[in-house]
Amino acid sequence: MVSVVILGSGNVAQHLIRAFGKSTLVNLVQVYSRNPLTLQNLLPSDKIISDVGQITQADLYIVSVLDDAIAQVCESLEFSGRLVVHTSGTKPIDVIPSRFKRGVFYPLQTFSKTREIDYGAIPFCLETEHPEDFRLLETVAGAISPHIYRMDSAQRKALHAAAVFVSNFTNHLYAIGNKICSENNIPFDVLKPLILETARKVMTLSPVEAQTGPAIRHDQGTIDAHLAFLGPEYRDLYEKLTHSIQNEQKL
Amino acid sequence: MVSVVILGSGNVAQHLIRAFGKSTLVNLVQVYSRNPLTLQNLLPSDKIISDVGQITQADLYIVSVLDDAIAQVCESLEFSGRLVVHTSGTKPIDVIPSRFKRGVFYPLQTFSKTREIDYGAIPFCLETEHPEDFRLLETVAGAISPHIYRMDSAQRKALHAAAVFVSNFTNHLYAIGNKICSENNIPFDVLKPLILETARKVMTLSPVEAQTGPAIRHDQGTIDAHLAFLGPEYRDLYEKLTHSIQNEQKL
Repeated sequence: MVSVVILGSGNVAQHLIRAFGKSTLVNLVQVYSRNPLTLQNLLPSDKIISDVGQITQADLYIVSVLDDAIAQVCESLEFSGRLVVHTSGTKPIDVIPSRFKRGVFYPLQTFSKTREIDYGAIPFCLETEHPEDFRLLETVAGAISPHIYRMDSAQRKALHAAAVFVSNFTNHLYAIGNKICSENNIPFDVLKPLILETARKVMTLSPVEAQTGPAIRHDQGTIDAHLAFLGPEYRDLYEKLTHSIQNEQKL
Repeated sequence: MVSVVILGSGNVAQHLIRAFGKSTLVNLVQVYSRNPLTLQNLLPSDKIISDVGQITQADLYIVSVLDDAIAQVCESLEFSGRLVVHTSGTKPIDVIPSRFKRGVFYPLQTFSKTREIDYGAIPFCLETEHPEDFRLLETVAGAISPHIYRMDSAQRKALHAAAVFVSNFTNHLYAIGNKICSENNIPFDVLKPLILETARKVMTLSPVEAQTGPAIRHDQGTIDAHLAFLGPEYRDLYEKLTHSIQNEQKL
């Protein structure tokens, strides 16, 4: 078994704790947090520590804290030469001090505390400074999910930007749809099958092939009717997205 | 059984033909099309007609043609007083000439010819000029799906604009994610679980509750890093969507 210490108690840390709890390949020996109360329902109390000096020997240290706190948490560790990874999609591998063997263990998923996650569907994007450490990270990620990708820091940064488009921005478009519905006494439920089918379509078709709607058809009558209908807060966004679809087509 | 004639042979017409074929409540007696060849794999040849004069008596006529052709196809019909509906999300009920009993039979789904549709998940938005005709439309839609909504022309127009946001524009965000991935040698597969989970989340959470990411966290460091990374073609859209998320929060 691979022994692991997690540092952090946020969303990602909590989901990793749950996922490792179901694994026979990973032994989660300790979780360090300045807020140990947030962990008390997830772990036996002897595994929760809030004093850096108590951190024990392990094969892997996973630092899962806010991006801007990664360097500082690593600096506080009282050892060197061991494998330390962070879970950030945006920070490069070298925010971890060079006295450690460094790596990145980035689960690409939209974690919310209120929803059960299908861990087996989460892609893990892994990077290690030393090639010989990759296998160990692969084992630990493999205990959670079969979807493992080797990715360097530049690729991970690109992936994170792409993820903002397909997840955060997409969710905002759902919010706009919801708002238009509620302003017109239409239940949001009417849109739900369309939302699911739009997502499912690109599991097998490329998004460019799957594109439908007035923008790609250059149906200016419908576009003008929508622009006239929309309030000023969404009209500009509608135009920008329509032009972006039409420009894409020209490429 | 309700007897139905379909006029048209496009995407929606073809899906309705398939769906009615599986129903014991609807008797599809004829399909009229100027391009009868497009229908030859879907129907016995004696049910396909291309001469308006041959259109037979039926309980319901479903005009499923391009928006701008609805009025003209209706005008060509050699009868009056019967129930005639169109399948458009954008056109009001009164594009159908007043000599008919008018209605709308709008299935809200993204139809593509290459993909099997789960008909039972399609919401139908129904409207009739005369209240006594509603029941018949409800029976015909109910033969395909249990998701039936009564909606007037103004609501349907709002719904169609909302659908453009949650489907056409969302698909375009998937296309942007795909492009960023391919430019950085990342398989699009990495994003697929995130795309599905983002859609599934709003089946139970409201999109405003489900919102995550740098925009809603006002994480300007990550936003700036993404803007610096993105090419000019997507930078503007990134900024617009980020501001729209942050404005929403204030409301």
